[in-house]
Amino acid sequence: MRRKKHAISPTRQENYPEWYQQVINEAELAEMAVVRGCMVIKPWGYAIWEQIQQTLNGMIKETGHQNIYCPLLLPLSFLEREAAHVKGFAKECAVVTHHRLSTNAKGKLEPVAPLAEPLVIRPTSEAIIGELFAKWVHSYRDLPLLVNQWANVVRWEMRPRLFLRTTEFLWQEGHTVHATAEDAMHETKKMLDVYSKLAENTLAIPVINGEKTATERFPGAENTYCIEAMMQDCKALQVGTSHFLGQNFSKAFDITFLNKDGNEINGWMTSWGVSTRLIGGIIMTHSDDDGLVLPPKLSPLHVVILPLIHHEADKARILEYCEGIYKALVAQHYQGEYIRVKLDDSDSRFGEKAWGWVKKGVPIRLEVGLQELETLSVFMGRRDYSYQKKKTISKEIFIHSVVTFLSEIQQNLFLRAKQFQAKNTKFIKSKSDFYDYFQSDRNGTSGFAMSPWIGDLESKNVINQDLKVTARCIPQDQVTERGKCLFTGRKAPIVLFAKAY
Amino acid sequence: MRRKKHAISPTRQENYPEWYQQVINEAELAEMAVVRGCMVIKPWGYAIWEQIQQTLNGMIKETGHQNIYCPLLLPLSFLEREAAHVKGFAKECAVVTHHRLSTNAKGKLEPVAPLAEPLVIRPTSEAIIGELFAKWVHSYRDLPLLVNQWANVVRWEMRPRLFLRTTEFLWQEGHTVHATAEDAMHETKKMLDVYSKLAENTLAIPVINGEKTATERFPGAENTYCIEAMMQDCKALQVGTSHFLGQNFSKAFDITFLNKDGNEINGWMTSWGVSTRLIGGIIMTHSDDDGLVLPPKLSPLHVVILPLIHHEADKARILEYCEGIYKALVAQHYQGEYIRVKLDDSDSRFGEKAWGWVKKGVPIRLEVGLQELETLSVFMGRRDYSYQKKKTISKEIFIHSVVTFLSEIQQNLFLRAKQFQAKNTKFIKSKSDFYDYFQSDRNGTSGFAMSPWIGDLESKNVINQDLKVTARCIPQDQVTERGKCLFTGRKAPIVLFAKAY
Repeated sequence: MRRKKHAISPTRQENYPEWYQQVINEAELAEMAVVRGCMVIKPWGYAIWEQIQQTLNGMIKETGHQNIYCPLLLPLSFLEREAAHVKGFAKECAVVTHHRLSTNAKGKLEPVAPLAEPLVIRPTSEAIIGELFAKWVHSYRDLPLLVNQWANVVRWEMRPRLFLRTTEFLWQEGHTVHATAEDAMHETKKMLDVYSKLAENTLAIPVINGEKTATERFPGAENTYCIEAMMQDCKALQVGTSHFLGQNFSKAFDITFLNKDGNEINGWMTSWGVSTRLIGGIIMTHSDDDGLVLPPKLSPLHVVILPLIHHEADKARILEYCEGIYKALVAQHYQGEYIRVKLDDSDSRFGEKAWGWVKKGVPIRLEVGLQELETLSVFMGRRDYSYQKKKTISKEIFIHSVVTFLSEIQQNLFLRAKQFQAKNTKFIKSKSDFYDYFQSDRNGTSGFAMSPWIGDLESKNVINQDLKVTARCIPQDQVTERGKCLFTGRKAPIVLFAKAY
Repeated sequence: MRRKKHAISPTRQENYPEWYQQVINEAELAEMAVVRGCMVIKPWGYAIWEQIQQTLNGMIKETGHQNIYCPLLLPLSFLEREAAHVKGFAKECAVVTHHRLSTNAKGKLEPVAPLAEPLVIRPTSEAIIGELFAKWVHSYRDLPLLVNQWANVVRWEMRPRLFLRTTEFLWQEGHTVHATAEDAMHETKKMLDVYSKLAENTLAIPVINGEKTATERFPGAENTYCIEAMMQDCKALQVGTSHFLGQNFSKAFDITFLNKDGNEINGWMTSWGVSTRLIGGIIMTHSDDDGLVLPPKLSPLHVVILPLIHHEADKARILEYCEGIYKALVAQHYQGEYIRVKLDDSDSRFGEKAWGWVKKGVPIRLEVGLQELETLSVFMGRRDYSYQKKKTISKEIFIHSVVTFLSEIQQNLFLRAKQFQAKNTKFIKSKSDFYDYFQSDRNGTSGFAMSPWIGDLESKNVINQDLKVTARCIPQDQVTERGKCLFTGRKAPIVLFAKAY
C-alpha cells in the first residue's frame, strides 16, 4: 500500500490551526454553513456527540436531575433583569423582530408583522428559567429543584471556528435552586466533578479543575468553576463550566420560598454546561498527523474489518472468514454495550478505504486477506500506535483480547495526554521568568504556567496585551497554596496561566 | 381513601378541550411559556418524549439513516427558491433582523447591528438541506443519501394548544435523495410505515395510513402521505407525514448527480417528520377522567410502589417488604430494558401521593401496608382498568406476572382505541347522509366518514364551511376502491373525512 508521508496536510508542526481544520474535513465531522458562523454537524461528528450525550445524560440523571425543555426565544425585558448578565451577552444576541414574511412590490420577500417586544434567541437560559422557577418554587419542600436541558443556543460569533466557536452550538445546561448557599455551592462543585469525570474517563482528556479569577466569571455568577485542558499546541481549552449564581438571579426574578420557620427567602442557584466544543477538545488532544484519533468509549465504531481481496476467486471465502470474526466481536460487551463493529466490504479501492477509517479515528482496524485466512490470523492496526506498528495476530487471540485492547487504547490516550500536560506545565515564580516562558514560544504557545497572582484588572490587561496570555483558573489542588504575586509581590494564590482558545 | 367522583374536572363528556388541558396540568407534562405560543416541557412530559425519541431513533437508524445537525437559521433567499414552499410557510416565519443589543438613551435595550440579509428561524429544513445536498451529491455512488435530524422548529402560531400547536416544537425531520423516482417513492412509503409501527406498537395509537388529497399536500411536495388517528372526541389528529418531493427541491437547489451513463440528472427527494404532537395524541387516545393513561412501552415508570403506613411502629418492616418487591422487579426485563420502578416513600399524604401517580398515568400501582405484608400480597391497581377494579394478589404471583401485566396493558390500550375507532367510522355514500352524519354530532364531532370524493377545491371549501370537516387522506387499504363522488357523481376514490385538530 503506497502512502503519503502523512494523511493530513499540513502537519501539526507545520500549521496547527490548518491541521485542525483538515482533520475535521478528512474525518467528515462538520463543515461551515452558509449562515456565517453556523456549523453543519455531519454524520460522523454527530455520532460522536450522541455518544457524549448518552454518557453525560446518564451521569446527570444519576445525580438526581430531570430533563426539561424551555423555549428558544426570550423577551428582551427578561434578559434585562440581571444587570451583569445582560451586559455579558448583549453583544452576541440574535434578535427576532418580525413574525411573518411577505412579498414586496419588487417581488422580494421581506419581514412584516413586527413584534411589540423583540425576542432574543437564547444565548443561555438563565433568564427564561428564572421566570419559570419563580412559578415553581414556593416552599422548602420544592427544593432542591434540579433540572437540565439539551438544547441549541445562539451567540453571534465574529471569528467562528468549527466546534470551538460557532454562532449556534449544541449543549446541555443545568439549572438548580437550593435552600442554602452551602447546598448550592456543593451542587456547583459536584457538577464540576461530573464534568471532570466525563472528560477524563470517557473523553480521555486530562483536565485541571479550578475556580475562575474574578474577571473571568460568567456574567451574573458569584463564582465560576471550570475544567481546563491542554491541547497539543499547548494552548488551554475551557471544556466545561459550573457557576455558583448566589442569589443574583433569584433576586432579579423573585424566586423565593418559605423556609421551615415560615420566612420568605430567596433561593440559591447554580447553572452549568458543556457543549459541542468538547468535540474540538477531543480532536486537539488525541489526533495525529494521520487524522482523528478517538477514545474507544465514544467512538461510533470500535473495530472496522477490511477484507483484502486480490483475486475474485478468493472473495467468498475471505468474506466468510471476515463474517466469522464480525459475529464473534459483536457478541461481546465493552463498557456495558455491544462492541460496535463494521465489516466494510464496499466497492472502493482498498487503500482509500483503509485510510478513510484511519482518518476517522476508529480505534482498531483489521486487514484480512488470503494470507490471514490461511494462517487463521488478522493484521491489526491500532489507532493509538503509529501506522507502521501494524502486526499479525492469531484470530482467536484477537477475539479473546479485543476488549482488553480497547481498554488499553482508552488508557493510553489518557496517559499520553496527561504526560504531555505535565511536561508542558511549569511553576514560575518571577515576572521575568514568566515573560521569558511565554515569549520564547514556537508556534505562538509555550505551555501552562502556575504562578502566584493577586488577580487585579490592571495586570490582567498587561499580561493579555504583552503575551496574549490569560488566567485560566485557580487550580483546585493549589487552592491552599500561596506565593508572592508576580506583579505586586503580595501574598497571592497560585493561578494557572496559558494562551487559550 | 376518600375521593372525588373523578380526578379530572371537567370530565371528557363535560368539556373535552378543557379536560385535555387539565390532564396536562395534573400530570405536570407541560405549561405555556411567557413567550406566546411557546411551551415549557416539564420533567414528566420530557421523559415521555425521551422514550419516544429512543424508540424512533433506533428505527430510523435500522432503516439506514444517519443523524446530522443543520443550522437553526436560514437566509431569506434560500426559502424563496421553491415557490410553493415559501408560499406555504411565509405567514409563520420568525425573522431575525439584528445581531446585537444596545442600551438606548432611555436606558432600554434595543436591537442594533442590522443584518444585511434577514434570517429565518427554520419552520422546517428543506431549504437549508437543499443547499447542503447540492454540495454533497455528485455521483450515483453518493445515493441514496439518507439523513435525519432531531431539532426544534418555529412556526408562528395564532391559536396555540399544548403539544398540538405550539410556536416552537421539537421533532425529527428526515431528508433523503435518490437516483430514481421509484426509489424515492419507496422511501416515502417505508418511512410512513415506520411511523405507523411506532404509533401502533409503541404509542398504542391505531392509525390510518393514507395519501393526502391534492389540496392538503406539504408546500413543495408532489405527494404527501400521513397517518391519522382518532381521538376520544372522534376528531382526527394527523400524527406523522412523509413527503415525496419529486424533483421540486432538487431543481430549486440544483441537486444533480452523474448517473452510470455519465448524464447529469436531478435527484429525487423525500422528507418526513413526527413531533411532540405525538404526546398530544397519546393523551387524547388513552387518558380517562382520572387523568393521563400511558402505554407501558413509553411510560417513564412501569410500576410505582406505595407503602401504606398507619403506625410508625410498622414502618420499618413495611418498607423492608416494599424494598424486597422493588428489587425483584428492577431485576427483570420488559422490552429489552430493565423494568422502571419507583418506591415512593416520600412524606406526602398517602391519598395525595396515590392520586398523583394515577394522574401521571403509571401503568401499575402497588399499595402495600400491614395487611399485604402479613398475607404476603400486594394491592394492585392497573391504569387500564377503572379505579374501582384494584385487587389483592399474591406477592410471588405479581412478581412472576409483572411483565405479562405490562404486555396486557399495552395491548388493551391499543385494542380499546382500535375498537373505538372502528365503532366511530362509517362508510357513507350520499351527500345527504354525509351532512346528517356530521351535523348530528354532540360536542362538535361525530366520527370518521369514508366516502367517495373527487377531491376538487370547490367542494372542499363547501364541506369545510358547512361542516368544519376536512379530507384527511385516501386510506391505503381503500386505494383501489372507487365509488360515486358525493358531490359530482363521478367515479372517485374513497376518502377519509373528519373534523380535525
